[in-house]
Amino acid sequence: MTVFINNEFVPEEKALLHVSDLAIQRGYGVFDFFKVVNSVPVFLQEHLDRFYFSAEQMHLNVAYSKDELKKIISALIEKNNAANTGVRITLTGGYSPDGYQLFKPNLVIALRPLTPPTEDQFQNGIKLLTYQHQRQLPQAKTIDYLMAIWLQPFIKENAADDVLYHQNGWVSECPRSNFFIVTHENKIITPSKNILKGVMRSKLIEVTKTSFEIEERALSVDEIKNAKEAFISSTTKMLIPVHQIDECIFSKDHSITTQVFQSLLQLQNSYVQSA
Amino acid sequence: MTVFINNEFVPEEKALLHVSDLAIQRGYGVFDFFKVVNSVPVFLQEHLDRFYFSAEQMHLNVAYSKDELKKIISALIEKNNAANTGVRITLTGGYSPDGYQLFKPNLVIALRPLTPPTEDQFQNGIKLLTYQHQRQLPQAKTIDYLMAIWLQPFIKENAADDVLYHQNGWVSECPRSNFFIVTHENKIITPSKNILKGVMRSKLIEVTKTSFEIEERALSVDEIKNAKEAFISSTTKMLIPVHQIDECIFSKDHSITTQVFQSLLQLQNSYVQSA
Repeated sequence: MTVFINNEFVPEEKALLHVSDLAIQRGYGVFDFFKVVNSVPVFLQEHLDRFYFSAEQMHLNVAYSKDELKKIISALIEKNNAANTGVRITLTGGYSPDGYQLFKPNLVIALRPLTPPTEDQFQNGIKLLTYQHQRQLPQAKTIDYLMAIWLQPFIKENAADDVLYHQNGWVSECPRSNFFIVTHENKIITPSKNILKGVMRSKLIEVTKTSFEIEERALSVDEIKNAKEAFISSTTKMLIPVHQIDECIFSKDHSITTQVFQSLLQLQNSYVQSA
Repeated sequence: MTVFINNEFVPEEKALLHVSDLAIQRGYGVFDFFKVVNSVPVFLQEHLDRFYFSAEQMHLNVAYSKDELKKIISALIEKNNAANTGVRITLTGGYSPDGYQLFKPNLVIALRPLTPPTEDQFQNGIKLLTYQHQRQLPQAKTIDYLMAIWLQPFIKENAADDVLYHQNGWVSECPRSNFFIVTHENKIITPSKNILKGVMRSKLIEVTKTSFEIEERALSVDEIKNAKEAFISSTTKMLIPVHQIDECIFSKDHSITTQVFQSLLQLQNSYVQSA
């Protein structure tokens, strides 16, 4: 595999950063992640827009314009002959002389395998555990997944698939996906604040708002347990039904979820075909 | 400079980690930092105890025993001919195949320059800004300094030296130091919960409790503004007086702070001399 670092393409074994980088010293960096389908980077503009937004929020400068980055990404996909893959762009705090002040950021663009949901997860839905936590600086896609990874044993012990964060009774998001419920009136609701605004989330809102009433607003822990259906969205997973949250089990009827998924899939397919 | 990585001593330019490491991918790792004075690693046992505690809390395994690590540290100090320096031990989440699950941790031990307080800071005290934030998993010394580094421009704009975190009206700590006040009754008070328990903090408590009444307990934002003196403690800074918090300016009388500092310095000197 070929990786792009700062200003050159290097073989994977040379995709290295010095230990003085602020990602290693202080967990400081941002990233974005998108899918490549039939050699087409899906929703690339939206991912780049968010990547630059995250960088700006975190006081990090991207050394390239978006157009330059698009060319680098195309070249990377071609060099790796990778028609279907994930791509991760990472921007770190750089090689800080004192291990604390921000320095010239390091940019890394590398292919990452996609880990789509299993057939069982997709058919039967996943189990979430609510967990009290609020991601710091949630609007930026930072590399801070300390809590998410720390919680892995807790998730396994409870035979769950992921956690759903909440704070003071209000639901926000899962560590790597956005959260939605469908009410008994077939209204779709998703939290509006203290979240990372996923690209798939905004596409989902865009594509369903003609067929459904969809609300972005505060969503309480009590309200989600009275939902008819629930699902999560992300770049990797696109959309997966949720069949259980804590002790609360939802009905096996995923009809609205399936309908939303079909619309989203259609949007993605037409994006890839017309590219 | 020579650096120790995993199982070998390498020249500084080869102190590299692959970009798949979970520190770079997910900001996941722990560390500890201690001073070397006259070739003696100061309070090394306490720092190693905390390092192993942090690692265990974060589900990371240290591949060496504490005695083995002490030998590696001695060899590193000798190879670098460094009588007076800082040493940082970092343990990351490792080269995760899927970029999310913990893997065999990477261990890095490297010298880092000490940045002691300036003469002015030490004589006249520093200015802190209160900021509402609670570090996640505060009892472990993780590499998560996302908020602290993000706040640097805010600190500079306000001509301050650091922030003091608080949540729901209760003070916790500064990003890299513990916080203390001295009341008008000459009682020393320091927060007891939601903090990283600094080695210098515990030495300070140990060395002053014979001369002063010292309380570890919840400390409110209101209470600190009525203090007679305030100071912070850390491995690097040992102890610095605080002359201002937000708009509240303390008296120039640092007599208790100076007395505590003298006791701490004496403890450190006798530790170094008897080693």
